[in-house]
Amino acid sequence: MGEFELIRSYFAAAPCAQGGEGVALGIGDDCALLAVPQGEQLAVSTDTLVAGVHFPDPCDPFLLGQRSLAVAVSDLAAMGATPVAFTLALTLPAVTADWLQAYARGLNRMAQACGVALVGGDTTRGPLSLTMTVFGRVPTGQALTRSGAQPGDWLCVGGELGNAAGALPLVLGQREAEPSIAEPLLAHYWSPQPQTGLGLALRGMASAAMDISDGLLADCGHIAVASGVALRIERDRLPLSNALLAFLGRPAAEQAALSGGDDYVLLFTVPSVRLSALQAQGWPIHVIGRAEAGQGVRLVDADGRDITPQIRGYQHFRETP
Amino acid sequence: MGEFELIRSYFAAAPCAQGGEGVALGIGDDCALLAVPQGEQLAVSTDTLVAGVHFPDPCDPFLLGQRSLAVAVSDLAAMGATPVAFTLALTLPAVTADWLQAYARGLNRMAQACGVALVGGDTTRGPLSLTMTVFGRVPTGQALTRSGAQPGDWLCVGGELGNAAGALPLVLGQREAEPSIAEPLLAHYWSPQPQTGLGLALRGMASAAMDISDGLLADCGHIAVASGVALRIERDRLPLSNALLAFLGRPAAEQAALSGGDDYVLLFTVPSVRLSALQAQGWPIHVIGRAEAGQGVRLVDADGRDITPQIRGYQHFRETP
Repeated sequence: MGEFELIRSYFAAAPCAQGGEGVALGIGDDCALLAVPQGEQLAVSTDTLVAGVHFPDPCDPFLLGQRSLAVAVSDLAAMGATPVAFTLALTLPAVTADWLQAYARGLNRMAQACGVALVGGDTTRGPLSLTMTVFGRVPTGQALTRSGAQPGDWLCVGGELGNAAGALPLVLGQREAEPSIAEPLLAHYWSPQPQTGLGLALRGMASAAMDISDGLLADCGHIAVASGVALRIERDRLPLSNALLAFLGRPAAEQAALSGGDDYVLLFTVPSVRLSALQAQGWPIHVIGRAEAGQGVRLVDADGRDITPQIRGYQHFRETP
Repeated sequence: MGEFELIRSYFAAAPCAQGGEGVALGIGDDCALLAVPQGEQLAVSTDTLVAGVHFPDPCDPFLLGQRSLAVAVSDLAAMGATPVAFTLALTLPAVTADWLQAYARGLNRMAQACGVALVGGDTTRGPLSLTMTVFGRVPTGQALTRSGAQPGDWLCVGGELGNAAGALPLVLGQREAEPSIAEPLLAHYWSPQPQTGLGLALRGMASAAMDISDGLLADCGHIAVASGVALRIERDRLPLSNALLAFLGRPAAEQAALSGGDDYVLLFTVPSVRLSALQAQGWPIHVIGRAEAGQGVRLVDADGRDITPQIRGYQHFRETP
């Protein structure tokens, strides 16, 4: 048995590979088999993380295990899907038992938190990268898409923005900060919490939804295009954490919230008649603006003046904000 | 729009990304949505191909497009699943329009041949590698697994063995051969034909099945372990092509058939009462041995003498047979 065959056996024995609801056949055959209840569809998403591009190399493998799965499951949350399972394609330059054990521990912890089972994958030799494919189920016709926003809908996010982008100088060891600042920022970077509960609550309520991975402005652009509306963001409504404000100051914190990436909080539009019902359920919903007739994304200040910066996508940690 | 965003738009416009039966929502949102008919399950498999490990670097991107998808769809054939869709995670060191166009043409051709739609994926910068996740549907309880072989079952393969392994010296430019030899061998390496039709025919007929990717002996070992039987292979029944015999001579051709990999033909066991019914349907079935009580894999000569070599898995093209 070769070393990569051994790794496969190792993952097959991991707690998160022991099946779950909806998994009819797990690791060990040519395919896994997923059962999809009548009246539901399967949501599928694939994400690749490359060392040195999407995460620092080297980095803590336990934290990487958590983050790599969380990033992928966040796409299920964005569709309003219930997480079911995932596959892991892991490419490694060499087999190191310590690295693998720590990675698998992080993966297991996030898998348990998200309720997903590892059902298959591949392990190959090469430069370090990970591709996760995640599976969720959603009642037919109820998936949240990017295309249903209507003029007049509220534009909302499911949590604070900019924390992960603000954490980058800490992640890269370029700056230091006291624990009360560093810990919450680093936690947001390394252990984003996919908002699957909020995603389920948004079914039948939100008119459009996605998760913020490329930065608020860029991702608002995706909803605006898909829905054929304009989106207006009020700068003073951006939810910013105390840690981010203390670390960067307000202007840079706002910039991190607008153009930083890796937030993995939900971005969605809600018809005004439904907003109070959602808020009454206690979800951490922040109204940051509104959908309007037209196209494009505008940022306005407290006086309604257009202060839209040039919109560009987040280029991961190679460009710190 | 960044160059990788452009690539995503490019793949989204590809013919194979325009949906298909079972695809409720294709490329362009956080997830794709797959519809699974009542009474069926979804078969899922993930395969990674790394440049320099699983294919030569550089290589013809059109041929790589064909091969990368065929290798993954072969796992659906092995489960008796009807191919539906796939995702592509493509990691590229740089964006080259010529390379991408040729790759996409090869991918499209194989997608059309296999009846699968591209429903999502990711495109990232890094050392060249590809991860395909493929989806198929199969009636609940009818998937072919590795675990049902019984003593007395015939051991069969769905086509000639060793051609892809035999092609390696040609693929790597280490040897040359006249077209009548080189062309069929190279075709088998670069454009394996997933045996999805045979896989469907084996539902309810075969007791165990898989596709041969690691080499006949190694893959027989997987069925033997999963089913709790011994498998006996008769060397003189190995189906060898004229091109392979002419290129390598009989001893090396047999070695390629036994320990070479990348065949992507189905390996299966069939209760003796069902074999003639399958053969009557005209499938290219070669009986190569039999399942017996016990464990392990044995190779025997025409006189029934044990000539089992040391069994080892195929290490892709780094080790030519």
